[in-house]
Amino acid sequence: MANKVSKSFLKDSHLITELKLCSIRLIDNAKFPWIILIPKRKNITDISELNSKDQMLLMKEIVHCSKLMKKIFKTKKLNVEKIGNIVPQLHIHIIARSTKDSTWPLSVWVIKGKPYSKVLLAKTISKIKKYFKG
Amino acid sequence: MANKVSKSFLKDSHLITELKLCSIRLIDNAKFPWIILIPKRKNITDISELNSKDQMLLMKEIVHCSKLMKKIFKTKKLNVEKIGNIVPQLHIHIIARSTKDSTWPLSVWVIKGKPYSKVLLAKTISKIKKYFKG
Repeated sequence: MANKVSKSFLKDSHLITELKLCSIRLIDNAKFPWIILIPKRKNITDISELNSKDQMLLMKEIVHCSKLMKKIFKTKKLNVEKIGNIVPQLHIHIIARSTKDSTWPLSVWVIKGKPYSKVLLAKTISKIKKYFKG
Repeated sequence: MANKVSKSFLKDSHLITELKLCSIRLIDNAKFPWIILIPKRKNITDISELNSKDQMLLMKEIVHCSKLMKKIFKTKKLNVEKIGNIVPQLHIHIIARSTKDSTWPLSVWVIKGKPYSKVLLAKTISKIKKYFKG
């Protein structure tokens, strides 16, 4: 039941790793440390459409990624969001927030993103991958 | 381990029902059908801080509320979000979206809310309560 990752994700994000249920990708926005979890299931747009085993697995992977994001980016503040208004394929955003970031305390959705420079992108991907492997 | 509901919630939302883990409240914003789930646990600001039994229960209650919100407001489009930048007490937003609502396809966070009229508030609460009881 593997699923193809939507073209928008391939364009705007970079693969970090594959977990049991989800592909983990870095969103190409230098304003926030931001990953998405994409369950590898076909034709699913909402969490409630997953079967109950996958729902539990999704929760486990959200918690696993949350702990890593807090550790990697040294913060306790996370936004965890299922939106899907523009790209319907089910995906969960996990965004590490800081009181010093561009929009604090507002949502990340109130401003436009800014792509990483080539150097910073490579550095960020490698940093995140290291924690996911460890 | 019951927890007090933050004062901001008491001001800006109305109790719908109590589930095993969460208090369910309607957000007083007539622009979107919008509930929050507040786990009745002390000093928790992130999903990953709940114990694993509560994490699974939270997922079950998110799915239960998601299904009801889709049914009550006749939509398949839901935003499910843990933000907590302004009110740190852990709470999950479940917002029924429609392609005809105020900000579609953008996030609900890009505009100011609008309180319900007294009549519409009573009507909306009673409608939601009916489904939660049924």
